[in-house]
Amino acid sequence: MEINISRDLFDHEAELAVANRKLFQKMGIIVLNLLAGPGAGKTSMIRSTAPLLKQPVAVIEGDPASSIDTDLLNSLGIPAVQINTEGGCHLEAPMVSKALDEFKLEPNTLLIIENVGNLICTAGFPLGESIRVVMVGVSEGDDKPYKYPDIFQGADAVILNKIDLQPYVDFNRERFQEGVRTLRPGLPIFEVSCRTGRGLSEWSQWLERTIISLLKEG
Amino acid sequence: MEINISRDLFDHEAELAVANRKLFQKMGIIVLNLLAGPGAGKTSMIRSTAPLLKQPVAVIEGDPASSIDTDLLNSLGIPAVQINTEGGCHLEAPMVSKALDEFKLEPNTLLIIENVGNLICTAGFPLGESIRVVMVGVSEGDDKPYKYPDIFQGADAVILNKIDLQPYVDFNRERFQEGVRTLRPGLPIFEVSCRTGRGLSEWSQWLERTIISLLKEG
Repeated sequence: MEINISRDLFDHEAELAVANRKLFQKMGIIVLNLLAGPGAGKTSMIRSTAPLLKQPVAVIEGDPASSIDTDLLNSLGIPAVQINTEGGCHLEAPMVSKALDEFKLEPNTLLIIENVGNLICTAGFPLGESIRVVMVGVSEGDDKPYKYPDIFQGADAVILNKIDLQPYVDFNRERFQEGVRTLRPGLPIFEVSCRTGRGLSEWSQWLERTIISLLKEG
Repeated sequence: MEINISRDLFDHEAELAVANRKLFQKMGIIVLNLLAGPGAGKTSMIRSTAPLLKQPVAVIEGDPASSIDTDLLNSLGIPAVQINTEGGCHLEAPMVSKALDEFKLEPNTLLIIENVGNLICTAGFPLGESIRVVMVGVSEGDDKPYKYPDIFQGADAVILNKIDLQPYVDFNRERFQEGVRTLRPGLPIFEVSCRTGRGLSEWSQWLERTIISLLKEG
């Protein structure tokens, strides 16, 4: 008998994700899994995007420790629930379904799951989301798609944040874009600055179109 | 019988790290484990620090994929060996001892292990190093010690990189420093810019003093 831990683990994770997906459908909500390394600007992006959408937005925050981001979002009127992984490097599907008990979400809500800051481990744990977005800042360098291919391969869109810092860092846009497109031709890349607001309307229009089309599909 | 997977794993990792440490001592080399999130500037730091040290420098590069950093360092005359973890989120002690076979290192060499870009998982896997350094860029935000406490708690020094970007980002130095010092009072924090060279002499002087004192200890 051969025991394939890796395959068994992924089968198990996939099953848990399917259970979440059914729950989300029953609730009539759309779920976005937001993936990025530490400090790419995930919370700033949520804060900037929420007011641009017609749909209500709620957030689940994943962090190894602290409730800094959750406190900030709640203070801005964006309902948020914290999951502390206590040192854990990614969220898992059951953590999300459990956190949902803390909310009362109306149908058509966009639930954004801000995953733990990690460009590797989060890629292997589906949460039942319909939209998966990877976010990178220009200050992190143009080599990210080459070094962290798995996370880009599973994405529905890429957000390239902190575009306002481009004059002050060595970032080759063509190299970044080529890296992404070699992994997944046609994957949309949104260049934004949460600080200046640049590019946020294109991104939020794409997101709104995607939400509407997913709601139609049921 | 109670099986404590977590404790067994850590005991096992600690044993492997001890074996590495003995090997490093036999070779007469000093080993630095460099920890940071993706794109904090680890390779730039190595590139900038090596010419400032009296000791010869060699590098082991850990990445989930690619050999971009290893190729760069070798092209600059800094001997480097690549470990590709094939999607894995951290280096482990046996990977390092195996990579050592690829080098011929003279005594008194500083071997820098550039760990995988990850502020969480790398903290739990000692590699037998004598010096552990955590690096963060100001563009990643001042909240990192609060969100990723484990990695700061195990460090001998913190490098705060990209200090040249401070005028263009929201980064509160006092908040960052307070976060670090609450976790480990007295932990040295070096503010540097690998781009402009600022702060690199203080950092490299500290590193040289530390290497000399470790070589004396044997």
